[in-house]
Amino acid sequence: MGSKDKVQARRLKGFQDYSPQIQYNRFHIMDLVRKHAGRAGFQPIATPALEYADTLLGVGGETDKQVFRFQDNGKRDVALRFDLTVPFARYVAEYQGTILFPFKRMQIGDVWRAEKPQKGRYREFCQCDLDIIGVQSDEADLEILLCFQSILNDINCGPFTMRVGHRGILSALIRQTLGNISDEEEKQTLICLDKLEKIGPEKVTEMICENTGAPHENAALLTSLLQDKEEDTGSHVPRIQEFLSGQHETLQQLENLKQLINLASQLGQGGRGRVLTDLSITRGLGYYTGLVFETTLDELPGWGAVCSGGRYQHLVERYIQREISGIGGSLGLDRLLAAMQEMNRLLPDNIRQTVYVAIADTAFRDYGFTLAAKLRQAGIATDLAMKADKLSSQFRHANRMKCPFVLTIGEEEVRNKTVSVKDMATGAEEKGVTLESCVAYMSEKLSTNPGADKLL
Amino acid sequence: MGSKDKVQARRLKGFQDYSPQIQYNRFHIMDLVRKHAGRAGFQPIATPALEYADTLLGVGGETDKQVFRFQDNGKRDVALRFDLTVPFARYVAEYQGTILFPFKRMQIGDVWRAEKPQKGRYREFCQCDLDIIGVQSDEADLEILLCFQSILNDINCGPFTMRVGHRGILSALIRQTLGNISDEEEKQTLICLDKLEKIGPEKVTEMICENTGAPHENAALLTSLLQDKEEDTGSHVPRIQEFLSGQHETLQQLENLKQLINLASQLGQGGRGRVLTDLSITRGLGYYTGLVFETTLDELPGWGAVCSGGRYQHLVERYIQREISGIGGSLGLDRLLAAMQEMNRLLPDNIRQTVYVAIADTAFRDYGFTLAAKLRQAGIATDLAMKADKLSSQFRHANRMKCPFVLTIGEEEVRNKTVSVKDMATGAEEKGVTLESCVAYMSEKLSTNPGADKLL
Repeated sequence: MGSKDKVQARRLKGFQDYSPQIQYNRFHIMDLVRKHAGRAGFQPIATPALEYADTLLGVGGETDKQVFRFQDNGKRDVALRFDLTVPFARYVAEYQGTILFPFKRMQIGDVWRAEKPQKGRYREFCQCDLDIIGVQSDEADLEILLCFQSILNDINCGPFTMRVGHRGILSALIRQTLGNISDEEEKQTLICLDKLEKIGPEKVTEMICENTGAPHENAALLTSLLQDKEEDTGSHVPRIQEFLSGQHETLQQLENLKQLINLASQLGQGGRGRVLTDLSITRGLGYYTGLVFETTLDELPGWGAVCSGGRYQHLVERYIQREISGIGGSLGLDRLLAAMQEMNRLLPDNIRQTVYVAIADTAFRDYGFTLAAKLRQAGIATDLAMKADKLSSQFRHANRMKCPFVLTIGEEEVRNKTVSVKDMATGAEEKGVTLESCVAYMSEKLSTNPGADKLL
Repeated sequence: MGSKDKVQARRLKGFQDYSPQIQYNRFHIMDLVRKHAGRAGFQPIATPALEYADTLLGVGGETDKQVFRFQDNGKRDVALRFDLTVPFARYVAEYQGTILFPFKRMQIGDVWRAEKPQKGRYREFCQCDLDIIGVQSDEADLEILLCFQSILNDINCGPFTMRVGHRGILSALIRQTLGNISDEEEKQTLICLDKLEKIGPEKVTEMICENTGAPHENAALLTSLLQDKEEDTGSHVPRIQEFLSGQHETLQQLENLKQLINLASQLGQGGRGRVLTDLSITRGLGYYTGLVFETTLDELPGWGAVCSGGRYQHLVERYIQREISGIGGSLGLDRLLAAMQEMNRLLPDNIRQTVYVAIADTAFRDYGFTLAAKLRQAGIATDLAMKADKLSSQFRHANRMKCPFVLTIGEEEVRNKTVSVKDMATGAEEKGVTLESCVAYMSEKLSTNPGADKLL
């Protein structure tokens, strides 16, 4: 093909390739999610990337316009999922008769959103979701917070803060401050409050006035009350509490939330996470009804939430005539990973200690493959020459691949059924290691090397 | 919402949900792929699900019309990948300057094909790919066969057969039998030959005559020669060898192939796999140029190939002015899994031994979560009551969840800092297990139970 017939090698904007180092780190985090979720009794499921568009659209919030939606070859109106929660609600509705409730679900999968790509924000990214569905209880809410805490404690992401709010309490605060407003006006207010962190209380106050017609004084009271955040575990939200005095039901909700957050803090002691009350948390998605939370990294506070979620009481009712309340959250794997890269906290790319078998001549190929098979069977990662070209080229390749040891096979080695082992760091070479003793010899060498094979 | 406002809970045809049992098995196979590929020096990468349509289309074969293709929100012509090989060629072209060749790549990901759904054949399915790119050698071909062999030997899929052919030798056979035909006629012949297994040599012979104008006698000779397959390791393909006498180059290729297959057989000894010569293997995809292989399960020979691939010498040249030859293969995880389900060879759904903490009253919630945290930290999978309702309900739930042990917390246990442990199989209950000794006690109990926690 001439160069003018070439197809350009390029990616779509907002879509990423993952190099071996990044993919090792992605697998590592997925493994930690599976480990902790499995230990906490969550069961893995998977659902399709593609769904009927009506399954996904219209859950509220601003997601609809970000959905990749198209007609498939059979003229069906289909869409790529934008999260794992809505398809999960469809799953629960579809299998409600066979699922044992409460059902604790774990899912790892890609989602797609046609939003503006930014640092840590992509059009395709992987989410790790945990949910407990079929029960509405503080225990379930707590369990979700605790499991994400244990996962984040095991990931090398530095200290983190989980901020926990409650949509029910926030609604009460909105109605108490703004007076008798319509459901639509409440929704508009939530959308405004979601911008508090980004644009500050003054601008949000103005926006609320514009969108609901509420007096400035009232809107200012609301945004001011929501500045009453817990900055350290233990101190609480006294202004909000005082403001709500007399509102028994809401005060009880707040009291529950405080107990839950205290217990989460207490059980998380010794970890790197804080759990704090912050009633200004709204979460963008339209389907939350109770507890909501989001998690930020203390070393990169402006990066945005890396793990968030909340309770959705009515989501399954979109599909069936039955209330099945759930609580869940997503760890945004790729945003977290981008943050870790930014903080220089990734696993190094030579974590895997792969030894290299150099072959002096094609005639010794069988011997090389036999040796490699022996080592691999014993769990020693082993690469070997894919072409018996000059030994110096093979050593250069092994060196660039950061192989700690090269095992050379030449005429002498084949004759004596041995191998010569070179330590690439020191340059020392041991000749005459027998084929029989080779596995034990290499295991010993590798186990005394720092940072030995920790990943599958 | 009234029932007439409901969205129907349904999936797209050819798309699957994966239940916990199936998803455990999927993860298990992915882990085995990662284990064996990692040990053989393959490095993981990932690429997007969505690509510019021109990146994927026009590689030949019958894939173009099966591609999910659409205009995205920015009017770009995009498509969901139909395999992991073509995007990998794009990846190699894009990063050719930084990749260390030969590059051994491992990738696990979903692909989409709008074909007719059948048993074991879906519109969305997961592939596990291994490739070695940047070198053209028998060693690389052998390495791919061996690594897939070691993976399949570790999967509970019963005995399997890898059939290995060669597009170059097949081309020579076609030209030798049909005479001087055009490239397009050769391509047509390959498409016909791909149907040999399905419709038999007579019909294929007719099809070849129709498509190339070749005399019946010649086409019949070709299909007859291709019946000359190795049925047991060791016997070879004497009729083809004889027919090719004088064609030195092709004979040499055949000799290489035999040696390679012999070595693969020899190194695979003790496993469940056979490796056989079968020059009728064409593989549907248009980009193969050298060795091609496919693997079937001996217990389900009609199921189709579960692992296949071949050498593609020119695929990267679609994008750049440089030949970077590669060999690779895909393990079709979901087709393999469906076959294993058919053969009743899946891991059971109670593989994970999760203990259950029953809580007699909400007042003991903190104690319950503390106990669960202790057990989980020690690696013991632990579920707990998400609502302190009647103990009998909690036991019923634990029983249906197949939990082998239930740890009950009541007033007495909290007072004495103990827990009562019930063996759900025997009904025996041990009271007064202290909180301190609880981890050791449960570890002992679980380790003596068969089939203990083997999965993350």
